[in-house]
Amino acid sequence: MAPLYEHRVQYYETDQMGVAHHSNYIRWFEEARSAYMEYFGLTYRQMEEEGVIIPVVSVSAEYKSMSRYWDLLSIETRLTEYNGVRAGLSYVIRDAISGELKCTGTSSHCFLNREGQLLSLKRSFPKMHQVWEKMLEEAG
Amino acid sequence: MAPLYEHRVQYYETDQMGVAHHSNYIRWFEEARSAYMEYFGLTYRQMEEEGVIIPVVSVSAEYKSMSRYWDLLSIETRLTEYNGVRAGLSYVIRDAISGELKCTGTSSHCFLNREGQLLSLKRSFPKMHQVWEKMLEEAG
Amino acid sequence: MAPLYEHRVQYYETDQMGVAHHSNYIRWFEEARSAYMEYFGLTYRQMEEEGVIIPVVSVSAEYKSMSRYWDLLSIETRLTEYNGVRAGLSYVIRDAISGELKCTGTSSHCFLNREGQLLSLKRSFPKMHQVWEKMLEEAG
Amino acid sequence: MAPLYEHRVQYYETDQMGVAHHSNYIRWFEEARSAYMEYFGLTYRQMEEEGVIIPVVSVSAEYKSMSRYWDLLSIETRLTEYNGVRAGLSYVIRDAISGELKCTGTSSHCFLNREGQLLSLKRSFPKMHQVWEKMLEEAG
Repeated sequence: MAPLYEHRVQYYETDQMGVAHHSNYIRWFEEARSAYMEYFGLTYRQMEEEGVIIPVVSVSAEYKSMSRYWDLLSIETRLTEYNGVRAGLSYVIRDAISGELKCTGTSSHCFLNREGQLLSLKRSFPKMHQVWEKMLEEAG
Repeated sequence: MAPLYEHRVQYYETDQMGVAHHSNYIRWFEEARSAYMEYFGLTYRQMEEEGVIIPVVSVSAEYKSMSRYWDLLSIETRLTEYNGVRAGLSYVIRDAISGELKCTGTSSHCFLNREGQLLSLKRSFPKMHQVWEKMLEEAG
Repeated sequence: MAPLYEHRVQYYETDQMGVAHHSNYIRWFEEARSAYMEYFGLTYRQMEEEGVIIPVVSVSAEYKSMSRYWDLLSIETRLTEYNGVRAGLSYVIRDAISGELKCTGTSSHCFLNREGQLLSLKRSFPKMHQVWEKMLEEAG
Repeated sequence: MAPLYEHRVQYYETDQMGVAHHSNYIRWFEEARSAYMEYFGLTYRQMEEEGVIIPVVSVSAEYKSMSRYWDLLSIETRLTEYNGVRAGLSYVIRDAISGELKCTGTSSHCFLNREGQLLSLKRSFPKMHQVWEKMLEEAG
């Protein structure tokens, strides 16, 4: 199973409420997603270099408790859907020490070529497709 | 009806895909929400000064088309739910010139006092409550 | 003279000190720089579209007083140096209402082509060069 | 000697130039500064909890080469000045793998109490003062 991704809350991520600003969780989902893909041997950097862009089609977050400066968070990422042309992921953010639930969320994605056209990974990049299939299996 | 809020996409908001990073839309929802409240004569600054904090409980966004550096965007904000203890808003972001749909989204909120306890605006801050009721009416 | 650029401090720009995080001023310099160039009829977007990239070579800021959420700031931008291959700008940020000095700063820049090679605007893009010369003159 | 701080460049930190946006380096200085203080046993969180705020008085950065998405950077932090009422730090950012120089910078700071008044750590918080003195010695 993919390891938890860890993020330390930075001062510049706090707001005047004294907690991490809610928009940062969306960014942490992305950090965790990058590390998740790297764990499966296919970095997002590689995919872009080979001409595949993975925009975010939708995103959602539910905030369960607040995070404070210098808190160490753990993020669990799971590929929940993948059919060769679209992918969906889910995220669970907890305090890495206490385990307290901080936030859950989802993101959905499509795949584009450099010209911005939708593409089927399955058809156009079968090797990448295999990695995504494996991700889906392991996320079981 | 509340005027549209305008935001000019900044260079620091773009990413290497050449478009505005998706996390910024969540921040623009907040900008628009601040301006929306100000239009109704109750700035979020005032509410905090009087001891009311309005954390985000959940947020969602659907990305319809990409925004580029220096695009001028218009954001329509609407209070869709309010019952004195919770509020829900919806957002529609368009290109301010062409009208092209960029993003739709929602946010939901509760109200806390300075000690971080849930509060009923209706009971504890009746004047603020009236403004929120008026917002809901006008959003009709 | 180029008009002052205005920026409203957003909630997501504050930190737990209750003021705008210092890194945002560097971003506001960029916002003001973009508007300054547009005023002279040469947007940064156009320059990039024609193949000129303008990276930041150095930046500095001195913080004079703190800015708070929803403060309206005015930013005065001036091109202080330009020789066809490098440019230097200075910034003065004030409270737009009270005039209180918030921050002064500088940035210096070079010009690159799409391959990332240094270029002389004067030699390779004489029309752009003229605009920059005019900016320098008017900054007097 | 304090260990190097490492930062992985995130996608949301890139801009449409295809590199990390220059404003992020200012944020990475802060990350490194937080870790540096923690190494000396005095987290910035603790200082704030005991009533000491450390605003940034000035900041500067010189960009030497560009950083790309997913690059691993190392940041060397050094306290270069400290006299009980003000502190100055310097930063050197390199590619953690190749050692290539990315950015050098400085920040200067004062110390404030919760009322926003300047304070002398030396006089008001002698234990904290000792830690800062030790940092200065070791940076030697």
